[in-house]
Amino acid sequence: RPNTLDCTAFTSRLPFLNEADQLKHVLRATLLGNGSRRENSAEHSWHIMLYAWVLAEHSIVEIDINRVMQMLLLHDLVEIDAGDTPIHGEIDHKKMAAKEEAAAKRLFGLLPEAQKVSFTALWHEFEAAQSNDAIYAKSIDRVQPVLLNLKNGGGSWIEYSVSLAQVDYRVGDKVKLGAPRVWDFVRSQIEPWFVSQGLD
Amino acid sequence: RPNTLDCTAFTSRLPFLNEADQLKHVLRATLLGNGSRRENSAEHSWHIMLYAWVLAEHSIVEIDINRVMQMLLLHDLVEIDAGDTPIHGEIDHKKMAAKEEAAAKRLFGLLPEAQKVSFTALWHEFEAAQSNDAIYAKSIDRVQPVLLNLKNGGGSWIEYSVSLAQVDYRVGDKVKLGAPRVWDFVRSQIEPWFVSQGLD
Ligand SMILES: [Ca+2]
Repeated sequence: RPNTLDCTAFTSRLPFLNEADQLKHVLRATLLGNGSRRENSAEHSWHIMLYAWVLAEHSIVEIDINRVMQMLLLHDLVEIDAGDTPIHGEIDHKKMAAKEEAAAKRLFGLLPEAQKVSFTALWHEFEAAQSNDAIYAKSIDRVQPVLLNLKNGGGSWIEYSVSLAQVDYRVGDKVKLGAPRVWDFVRSQIEPWFVSQGLD
Repeated sequence: RPNTLDCTAFTSRLPFLNEADQLKHVLRATLLGNGSRRENSAEHSWHIMLYAWVLAEHSIVEIDINRVMQMLLLHDLVEIDAGDTPIHGEIDHKKMAAKEEAAAKRLFGLLPEAQKVSFTALWHEFEAAQSNDAIYAKSIDRVQPVLLNLKNGGGSWIEYSVSLAQVDYRVGDKVKLGAPRVWDFVRSQIEPWFVSQGLD
């Protein structure tokens, strides 16, 4: 391929790539599998991309796994400005959406026009959770913290006093839209923990 | 798509996905952009996938960006057993290669056969650095720590007493194979730092 780009096309992307480094400082409610510390949103994004790829055949909707991966790669970038919203915490959805929209505008606005437009569109598609790719991406984003909590002995379920019914409603219903068999299995694995805690 | 998979196809992947969580504990020589702590290999993998995608048009070799992303997603998993090898440290290449090969065998061996084979092949392709996709993936893997060091004021260059000539040899020559214009620009940015330290 001809190398006709001048440096400008690169330099114009550097501020975005540098800014993305901040996502490593955004801490989630979820603890790592060994319980030693909270997971940050950058390593979480990496982990769910691996989940999405490895589990792709479990999607019940027809997906383009490459688009799903791109979606997951950038889905949490807005947290650099807006912070993480714990799924089991109190959420003011309208306020949060406004903060994230402003974050997307600032962050994707660091990119050259064409990339700004396509990244913003992909993020909106993920947030809307209507397309097949977004439905599967959301399923995966929701199921990974459940498996970390199972591994670390309760994690954010303990911190937020979560019941199994709440997990069904806040997590399971969404996972089932994209990967119902995965949820069937995961639920069977977590039920004993909730029973043991009297939270079933 | 018909949902004919039984749970076995999922449960057989869980140990691999759980084990991958360990990559968040593998610390690299590089500090984050603000210098506050070392970068771990999971968040590093996420960051370089973003780099690879955003900078794809700067590749001078014809690439399949989706394969590049998959390669980068799994390229560091072997560090779970073998640890990170700082590029500016003393390296026993033969010993390291044997450790990483054993790690790949154990980790990818956790997956069902077809995925084990394809993941192992993709990792070998990355390590061999011969295919276009691997050449570009390696360029990106090498250039990101340089930009973090520039941001945090020297980072691992100080720790390992690195000269500009060593950066040229250990990093620049590899980056240039896949993205020479990127290296031209990055080198122009880091040169003043090395001059200021008397390490040019
Ligand atoms: Ca590495």
